Amino acid sequence: MKKHNFSAGPSILSPYTIKHTAEGILDLDQSGLSVMEISHRSKEFIAIMDETQQLFKDLLDIPSGYSVLLLQGGASLQFCMVPYNLLQTKAAYLDTGSWASKAAKEAKLFGEVEVVASSKDTTYSYIPKGYVIPSDADYFHITTNNTIYGTEIKEDMDVPMHLVADMSSDIFSRPMDVSKYALIYGGAQKNLAPAGVTFVIVKDEILGKVTRPIPTMLNYQTHIDNGSMFNTPPCVAIYAAMHTLRWYMDQGGLAAMHKLNLEKAGILYDEIDGSPIFTSNIGDVNDRSIMNVTFVMKEEYKEKEADFLAFAGSRGMSGLKGHRSVGGVRASIYNAMPISSVEALVETMKAFEQNL
Amino acid sequence: MKKHNFSAGPSILSPYTIKHTAEGILDLDQSGLSVMEISHRSKEFIAIMDETQQLFKDLLDIPSGYSVLLLQGGASLQFCMVPYNLLQTKAAYLDTGSWASKAAKEAKLFGEVEVVASSKDTTYSYIPKGYVIPSDADYFHITTNNTIYGTEIKEDMDVPMHLVADMSSDIFSRPMDVSKYALIYGGAQKNLAPAGVTFVIVKDEILGKVTRPIPTMLNYQTHIDNGSMFNTPPCVAIYAAMHTLRWYMDQGGLAAMHKLNLEKAGILYDEIDGSPIFTSNIGDVNDRSIMNVTFVMKEEYKEKEADFLAFAGSRGMSGLKGHRSVGGVRASIYNAMPISSVEALVETMKAFEQNL
Repeated sequence: MKKHNFSAGPSILSPYTIKHTAEGILDLDQSGLSVMEISHRSKEFIAIMDETQQLFKDLLDIPSGYSVLLLQGGASLQFCMVPYNLLQTKAAYLDTGSWASKAAKEAKLFGEVEVVASSKDTTYSYIPKGYVIPSDADYFHITTNNTIYGTEIKEDMDVPMHLVADMSSDIFSRPMDVSKYALIYGGAQKNLAPAGVTFVIVKDEILGKVTRPIPTMLNYQTHIDNGSMFNTPPCVAIYAAMHTLRWYMDQGGLAAMHKLNLEKAGILYDEIDGSPIFTSNIGDVNDRSIMNVTFVMKEEYKEKEADFLAFAGSRGMSGLKGHRSVGGVRASIYNAMPISSVEALVETMKAFEQNL
Repeated sequence: MKKHNFSAGPSILSPYTIKHTAEGILDLDQSGLSVMEISHRSKEFIAIMDETQQLFKDLLDIPSGYSVLLLQGGASLQFCMVPYNLLQTKAAYLDTGSWASKAAKEAKLFGEVEVVASSKDTTYSYIPKGYVIPSDADYFHITTNNTIYGTEIKEDMDVPMHLVADMSSDIFSRPMDVSKYALIYGGAQKNLAPAGVTFVIVKDEILGKVTRPIPTMLNYQTHIDNGSMFNTPPCVAIYAAMHTLRWYMDQGGLAAMHKLNLEKAGILYDEIDGSPIFTSNIGDVNDRSIMNVTFVMKEEYKEKEADFLAFAGSRGMSGLKGHRSVGGVRASIYNAMPISSVEALVETMKAFEQNL
C-alpha cells in the first residue's frame, strides 16, 4: 500500500521523480549504463547538470549576475560556508528556530554576530517583527521556513544589506524575487531531491571581499569557476532534482505550485481552527507555514495524542509525529503532496474526533 | 546493450547494487515508501546506516577504537578536514599525483607542510621510495592509488607517526591492516556507491589535539558523537553502499575480491607486456595499480590511439580514454568489473593488433 507521506524531510517526492530516478538507475536513457556509474565528465551527465541549473533559473526567474551551485554537505555545511565567504566584521541573524540558531552559532567563529530578535521564549511559535538590523552588518541571515515549529516568512524582505536565506524547506513553494537576496541556500530533501545535494544561489559580485584564506572546497568561487564540477558531484541526487524541476514545469511552474500549496494548507488549517480537539500552536495566522502544518491537541485531550498518531498510522499516514523538541503533530505538505492526501488526513482527524 | 564500463569514476557497480538500489527507490522493503523519501530518523534508515557501518568493520576487520563515518563532500573536502583536525605544526605528504598534490596544497592553509618526495618529474609514473619523513610531523599523508597515472601503494606502511591515507580508489580491493593507519578516507564512487557519500575511518584517540576552533560540520568529533547523523546523511548513496558491501560478503569478502582483482590485472598486464603495439607507462611492475591499468601505444603507433578507442567503443567498451592530463588508455577494473569484461578488452586489443 502506498503511504500518505507527511515526513518533514527527507520527504515526499513526486511519483514522476521516483519513477524516472529508478529507471535511470537501471539504464540511463537506453545507454546501457546506470546513472550511478557514468563519469561526471560524460556528455550525458554534463547535460543533466546543465539542465538542472537552467531549470533553477527558469523556475525561480533568477536574474543575470547570479550563479546556481549544486554542492554537498547540506544546509549545515552552509552555516559555516556563508560566514567563511561573507563575514568581514559583523553579521546579523534572526533567530526563528534551532536551525537559525545553529547558523548563528557557526558564524561566531568568524566575527561578531548580532542576533537581532528571537522567538525562543515561546518555543519559536512566531516570527519576530519590529527588530532593528545594525546598519554595519555585512549581511542579514534568515531561515524562511522553520520546519520544526511550523512558522514561515512568506514574503521577500527588503533590507539595506546583503540578505542571506536558508530556504531548505520552502524553496520552490512559491514564485519569489531572487533579486532581493544576495545568497539563498538549502538542502534538497524537501522540495527537490533525496538528501545529498545542496543548492546555493549566489550573487557573484558579493564574493571576494573577505581577506581570510578560504579552503578550496569551502570557497563559493571554486564552484562557480568549475560549474559545480570542481570535484565529483552527487550525480544521482542531481538527476532526481532535474526530474522534480521538470515536473514543476509540467505542472505550470511555481505560480501553480503556490496555488496548490495555499489550497492544501487552507484545507488543513480550516480543519484545525474549527476542531473541538485540535488547535494551532501558531497564534499569528500570517506566520503559519504552508509547508509544515504543526498542531497540538487541546489541553483536555492532551493524553490522546499518541492514540491519534496510532489511528492515523493505521490509515496509512506516515511521518505525522511532531519533532521531539516540541511534540504534537506535524503534517509536512511539501509540493509533491497531493490534495487527496491532505483530504485523507482531514477525514482522519474528523473520524478521530467523532470516535472520542 | 549492457556496456563494458571501464570508467575511472563514477564507475561500474555490481548488478546486485544497481538492482536493489532501483528497487528501494520504487518501494523500500514493501514499506510503501521510497528510500528517497523516508526520514533519516526512521527505524528503517537507522537500520541501513547501522548495517553499512558494521559491514565496513567486518570486511576491513577494523579494530576497536576506530569510528566509521559516512559523510558528504568527497575526498576533496577531506583535503581540508584532515589538517583542520590533525595538523598542529607540521605535516608530511607524499606527492604521487594531482590528488595527492591537491591534498598537500590544502594543508598549507593550516601549518607547515613538507612534501617528502614527488614523482612529478616523470608525470607521476612511479611511487617514490627511500624518502625520509620528518620525525616531528604530526602525520604522514599518502594517496594509495593514483587513478590518473595507474600507480598504487599496495602494502600497508609502517611509519612512526600517524599515517593518513586517501584510499578513494582502492578501498575494499584487498584485505588490509587498518591498525597501521590513523585515518583513512575516500569518496565512494569507485568500489562502494554512486558519488555523494564519503567514508572516513578514524582512530578516535588522535582527535582533540589541535587548539584551533573547528566549524561544527568539519569536526570529526561532531560526526562520531552523532553516528554520522548530525545532519541529514546522503541516504540513497548509503543504501547503495550497503548493497555493495553485502555483495562483497557474499563473494567471500576482501580476500576473494583481491584474488579476483589480481587475476584481472594480471590478464591485462600480460597482454600489454606481450603486445607489439601497446606498452605500459609504469616502469616498476611493483608500482602498477590493480584498479586502474594505464597503457599507451608504442611510439611508432601513437597516431592510432584514437582509432583504438573508437574500435573499442564499437565493441561496447566505455570509459577507456586516458585522463586528459596524460592521454593514452586507462582501463579501470574496480571490484565490480567481471573477468569477462577484461577478457573482452584483451580480445579487442588483439583484434586491433591483427587488423593494423
